[in-house]
Amino acid sequence: MEEFVYNKVSPEMIEAFQAIVPGKVHVNGDINEDYSHDEMPIYGKAMPEVVIDGTTTEDIAKIVKICYENSVPVIPRGAGTGLTGAAVALHGGVLIDMSKMNKILEYDMENMVVRVEPGVLLNDLAEDARKKGLLYPPDPGEKFATLGGNVATNAGGMRAVKYGCTRDYVRAMTVVLPTGEIVKMGATVSKTSSGYSLLNLMIGSEGTLGIITELTLKVIPAPKETISLIIPFENLEECIGAVPRLFMAHLQPQALEFMEKEIIYASERYLGKSVFPKELEGIDIGAYLLVTFDGEDMDGLEELTEQAAEVVLEAGAIDVLVADTPAKKKDAWAARNTFLEAIEAETKLLDECDVVVPVNRIAEYLTFVKSLEDQYDFQIKSFGHAGDGNLHIYTCANDMDEETFKRQVDDFMKIIYKKAAECGGLISGEHGIGSGKMAYLNDYVGETSMRLMRGIKQVFDPKMILNPGKICYKL
Amino acid sequence: MEEFVYNKVSPEMIEAFQAIVPGKVHVNGDINEDYSHDEMPIYGKAMPEVVIDGTTTEDIAKIVKICYENSVPVIPRGAGTGLTGAAVALHGGVLIDMSKMNKILEYDMENMVVRVEPGVLLNDLAEDARKKGLLYPPDPGEKFATLGGNVATNAGGMRAVKYGCTRDYVRAMTVVLPTGEIVKMGATVSKTSSGYSLLNLMIGSEGTLGIITELTLKVIPAPKETISLIIPFENLEECIGAVPRLFMAHLQPQALEFMEKEIIYASERYLGKSVFPKELEGIDIGAYLLVTFDGEDMDGLEELTEQAAEVVLEAGAIDVLVADTPAKKKDAWAARNTFLEAIEAETKLLDECDVVVPVNRIAEYLTFVKSLEDQYDFQIKSFGHAGDGNLHIYTCANDMDEETFKRQVDDFMKIIYKKAAECGGLISGEHGIGSGKMAYLNDYVGETSMRLMRGIKQVFDPKMILNPGKICYKL
Repeated sequence: MEEFVYNKVSPEMIEAFQAIVPGKVHVNGDINEDYSHDEMPIYGKAMPEVVIDGTTTEDIAKIVKICYENSVPVIPRGAGTGLTGAAVALHGGVLIDMSKMNKILEYDMENMVVRVEPGVLLNDLAEDARKKGLLYPPDPGEKFATLGGNVATNAGGMRAVKYGCTRDYVRAMTVVLPTGEIVKMGATVSKTSSGYSLLNLMIGSEGTLGIITELTLKVIPAPKETISLIIPFENLEECIGAVPRLFMAHLQPQALEFMEKEIIYASERYLGKSVFPKELEGIDIGAYLLVTFDGEDMDGLEELTEQAAEVVLEAGAIDVLVADTPAKKKDAWAARNTFLEAIEAETKLLDECDVVVPVNRIAEYLTFVKSLEDQYDFQIKSFGHAGDGNLHIYTCANDMDEETFKRQVDDFMKIIYKKAAECGGLISGEHGIGSGKMAYLNDYVGETSMRLMRGIKQVFDPKMILNPGKICYKL
Repeated sequence: MEEFVYNKVSPEMIEAFQAIVPGKVHVNGDINEDYSHDEMPIYGKAMPEVVIDGTTTEDIAKIVKICYENSVPVIPRGAGTGLTGAAVALHGGVLIDMSKMNKILEYDMENMVVRVEPGVLLNDLAEDARKKGLLYPPDPGEKFATLGGNVATNAGGMRAVKYGCTRDYVRAMTVVLPTGEIVKMGATVSKTSSGYSLLNLMIGSEGTLGIITELTLKVIPAPKETISLIIPFENLEECIGAVPRLFMAHLQPQALEFMEKEIIYASERYLGKSVFPKELEGIDIGAYLLVTFDGEDMDGLEELTEQAAEVVLEAGAIDVLVADTPAKKKDAWAARNTFLEAIEAETKLLDECDVVVPVNRIAEYLTFVKSLEDQYDFQIKSFGHAGDGNLHIYTCANDMDEETFKRQVDDFMKIIYKKAAECGGLISGEHGIGSGKMAYLNDYVGETSMRLMRGIKQVFDPKMILNPGKICYKL
């Protein structure tokens, strides 16, 4: 592979940056340690030489142009909630903090879109849209990620089973290319066949092809009512086995999550509140489905609930607990939404795998994964999106040294990625590749696809300055 | 731009092809004239040197490899129903007739996908799926296009307003690259963040990046009932003006088409049957909306119909005619589905524009387009997808010489594409770019995006042998 040589940020460059964005340029001792990592520090920490607060498309274009001319790396970073090391300045350079561009610019109610800066947090858009009777459907577990980061990873989330992923809600974007050129992609339309879809190439490119500086996102009228069900099962196999039956009954849940008891226990310890039943009718509960239906009125939802209950009870559910008040729904989902924090709170060494497999292979896949646990010194905790086959499998250890942990995890990951491929799945459902999963991607997609990706990267970024060392190009 | 020199197909190559696919290789006098054009011959006809019937992925890979080694162009062609010249062998070479690979391979009811060869006709999949209680939602006007062609243009169609475009239903594909390598893209999953989306790059690439040899497509449970409404208006402005009101009322039609009276007249002449009212309450009808709602039961649909009627009558509709029996629905949609054939039947010289504009700009845009009619010797006929802003504007002439027609049309197109851009729209909603619209795409997206597209093309196709002279690379 071609060698790229980067320069250090020079004092002249820093002066030039300060002239473009006075007071927004941070250097050396002035840079918070947080900028050296994301939520998965095990993939390596690294400090950027300079951090610049994002301001406008034009300013960013000027800054990137200077970096391009000087062969200095540029790394766009959102809220730093990523799980693959994608926003880490592995080769130093200039990190642009896009979370500072956080204005919701405009709703267009006739075309049902909202224009936002990329640093708006998912949670902020969700709340703002709700006040207007609208729903922005993508709903990743991490509510304090930026929308730019969500687009950069094609984040999926809980509602993907009914509404699709972030990709399906991006209508247009403004992008600063690694050369400093500004390009607009897409438009406020839902249909297009106007040349190669650069828009879709940008989605999921993890800040390696361009810096997203504005987004136009589709919104929908918010469903008027929702109802959630906690469905306990004796074991994970029965729990997952119930999922295809719900689909076959055409019930179309908005969200359909599975969780093992260990992770519910951890979450409830973290929240200090017990919501999920642990034992029913003398049976120890081993796993749960958490299901939400949405609709226009409660009568319709109650009917759906009855139909769903019939299906899951027949499939082996021990009971069906209905969360139909705001407080009950909040409690049920609070447990789900704090899984990662709960795991982090009680785990010293952590790694994860975010495969996606066909929904009818989930049970087989998870059974296989669990069968490996005895071979390693770490614990395995899993939860995920039963509705779309996207599984989050965490390796957790408190009493291992980091080297041994990493070696064991790498061995484990190779085996479970291979199994995912055998099941017809893919390496990552929504977290992306970053630097942490590049080797596994290579194993899975093969040399030809990797060659195409690297070629595309070079078309966008001939000097390889934008977020180097991620997805397809190891330096 | 780089120069590419192509060789002619040699007798040795023909022998090699015959050894790979005996009896499937057609040369010279043996090639039907149909292979020299698509449905828009005005963009130029050209005969391939050899036509080969598509058979299997492996055979096609071998054939393409030979062409690659010999620098001979390869052109994949579906049913030839394209409207931009995309499947025309402008530089000679080998045309592969993909319509011969037309088997529906397998339904996977647990994952709700169907695996097909790319030459299956849209109509054949639609009928087959319906028998299984399933719906393949994309519904372009041309039912006898191949699914491979639909994917290659990201065809949208009538139901895009509710269900999205072809892009949203492609889960995976097998592709033969211009080098003869075979790559699988995507998987039977709805979520992925596993490197750059080569799958989404292939969709809409009009046979220039690779040859699609297999598709895995998402299907959904078929809605149990549908109801259609013919809604006459005095003029086009009021007709289009009613559209945003339907959206604001959250009525979610499955299809929402507008049509001017001239085109309904042409269609009914072609079909020999009158279905649409021409005059009501002493008012001459100038334009129509044709709306379809789908749902699980007729009661719900009747309620929707009443709500929709209230909205459109308030917006100036003269009446609302309900088509609630299979025969009535068929008649109403037969008129819509034969527009292009009806126009072709009574027109000698034909060109078209397929822009897409934000839905709240449709009326302004069409009023502008019609205001230009007096300046030209051709007639303008328009219809399109009021629900998604995708407009089909036809220039039709019977008494002009071709040169004058082409010159006038080019002048007209430049003006209306510019206006589409000013309205925030795009060059093509679903027909694509092919060879016919390359110059307009260049004007609209600008040199930087065109450079990226050309770069991508060269990454996939270093010798520029696959469908040369289309989308972004004029030779």
